[in-house]
Amino acid sequence: MTQLTRRHLLGGAAAAAATVLTPFSITKSHAAAPPIGKQAPSFYRTKLGDFEVTVVNDGARVAPIPNGFVRNVSQDQVIATAEAAFMPKGQLVAPFNPVVVNTGSKLVLLDTGFGPGVGPTVGLLQGTMKAAGIDPKAIDIVVCSHMHGDHILGIKNADGSLAFPNAEIKVPALDWAFWMNDDNAAKAQDGFTKGQMGFNRKIFGDLKDKVTRYEWGKEVAPGITAIDAKGHTPGHSALVIQSGSSRVLFQGDVTNVPDLFLRNPDWQVMFDHNPDEAVATRKRIHDMAATEKLLVSGFHFPFPSLGYSEKSGNGYRLVPVAWNPTI
Amino acid sequence: MTQLTRRHLLGGAAAAAATVLTPFSITKSHAAAPPIGKQAPSFYRTKLGDFEVTVVNDGARVAPIPNGFVRNVSQDQVIATAEAAFMPKGQLVAPFNPVVVNTGSKLVLLDTGFGPGVGPTVGLLQGTMKAAGIDPKAIDIVVCSHMHGDHILGIKNADGSLAFPNAEIKVPALDWAFWMNDDNAAKAQDGFTKGQMGFNRKIFGDLKDKVTRYEWGKEVAPGITAIDAKGHTPGHSALVIQSGSSRVLFQGDVTNVPDLFLRNPDWQVMFDHNPDEAVATRKRIHDMAATEKLLVSGFHFPFPSLGYSEKSGNGYRLVPVAWNPTI
Repeated sequence: MTQLTRRHLLGGAAAAAATVLTPFSITKSHAAAPPIGKQAPSFYRTKLGDFEVTVVNDGARVAPIPNGFVRNVSQDQVIATAEAAFMPKGQLVAPFNPVVVNTGSKLVLLDTGFGPGVGPTVGLLQGTMKAAGIDPKAIDIVVCSHMHGDHILGIKNADGSLAFPNAEIKVPALDWAFWMNDDNAAKAQDGFTKGQMGFNRKIFGDLKDKVTRYEWGKEVAPGITAIDAKGHTPGHSALVIQSGSSRVLFQGDVTNVPDLFLRNPDWQVMFDHNPDEAVATRKRIHDMAATEKLLVSGFHFPFPSLGYSEKSGNGYRLVPVAWNPTI
Repeated sequence: MTQLTRRHLLGGAAAAAATVLTPFSITKSHAAAPPIGKQAPSFYRTKLGDFEVTVVNDGARVAPIPNGFVRNVSQDQVIATAEAAFMPKGQLVAPFNPVVVNTGSKLVLLDTGFGPGVGPTVGLLQGTMKAAGIDPKAIDIVVCSHMHGDHILGIKNADGSLAFPNAEIKVPALDWAFWMNDDNAAKAQDGFTKGQMGFNRKIFGDLKDKVTRYEWGKEVAPGITAIDAKGHTPGHSALVIQSGSSRVLFQGDVTNVPDLFLRNPDWQVMFDHNPDEAVATRKRIHDMAATEKLLVSGFHFPFPSLGYSEKSGNGYRLVPVAWNPTI
């Protein structure tokens, strides 16, 4: 603060008191309204044929861009690209968007967010679901697109109990084979992979006989089919949700934050297991999405996380759906 | 429906009952979850320096594009442009986004939406404000950007009483001079202008001595300055909201739906009073917004109606802000 003004000197309650004392305010019968400081519950609901789809946000991180966030691009270029996309200077806005699908017969949760204790601006899923009128006990099936912490940690409450106690839990068979292999866990070199190995043991260590492992090309729930989206993890899956002729593609982490990786599909995020495969998958799936004008939901797209992929330059641009205030 | 499948035959309750009878479901203790059918409350809150800004959506219309909606462009081109922007074929999605600013000393409402009785998907402001924790009785000042129905009708309840009973009401002086002039009302030729004349008489007829008429270049509330944005109406105003070094431009109807009129700033919406002037204003204000990377709120931008104008082609592209789930 280089300049002190009357405004700076009269902060908070003092400013409010001063306002009451000004002649202009003598006729007012009510006090200055306090700031509310609370965001809207971040859910968004839309019909998809006979299905009801509700995006239930788990929060977002606004944080300095980690060094090496994009493996094959200079940090300066990453920072400049984020800033050109109107992110706060030097920072990345990374949201987390699970989705609930009510197929009429099954209530299905796609990915679970961070769960409790990771940070103040994430792990909000339970509160968002409550605001959206969705009872965690009513969830029939939890489908994880892949086995990274932000997609699986929400399976358990802080006390280790199941957050969705009546749900069958489904994970990609190839991810299970990779992440639950103890040799792989022992071999893990980098901090990120080691961390994910720990998260998987924490969540799934005592659930080994209770988790269903799913394969590509098959339904994981009525109207929801898993498709090959490997690269980000060995078994990373996208989920096609279809009712009648209406479809939405839950693309998981096929692209991370779209302002970086959809605009520049060759960029490789530091979390990719097989970066080249991840790039090929991204191009294959978003070429299809753009050509078919397919509605896409992305776990790291800005809430409400629904939009259309449009070819632009050497990559794609996300065109968000127009928010409909009624359903 | 050309094909009848088991899914088609077993709609609704019948399908749910059938599910209960399948072997897979015998272990289930809970019924299929019913669809909820209710959208999230459409408000969005952000800090602006010491101010708190809350977008409080009044609803949206999704309707066939009226003939002649754009005066100087063929209907085919308008329909094609809307469809390319992923609107439902032949239709336009037109949202309505008033804004509440808490300056710390004053609670200010910018534009009021349609009020009661106009249609089922609009006039939602009162419900949105309630969800956002804002008491209509606490509003100190209502500022109208201009005197069209969707910006003024919300001033009154269905019974004719004031919806914001403790608020000073402020309208542009030049709009007041135009719309409240009885000669102008008598001369009005087209249905749209006649309609607006009626709305203004309904709302302001018994408030003539109680409405404050504001001028450009002056504050309408602490930190909120009206600027010349004429063309759409004679007194159409934009409002610059500033706290410390943080600013947001409430652009009112400088551009209508951005996918049409921001991308194509020469297009003239049928509601413009002086179309050439409206085009010049749009270019002047969005050139400034793009150059200064100014955060802009547009009454007809998709909710949450906040974004950045970016030069693109012969016009501008709206880059929506990334929704922040916490504040």
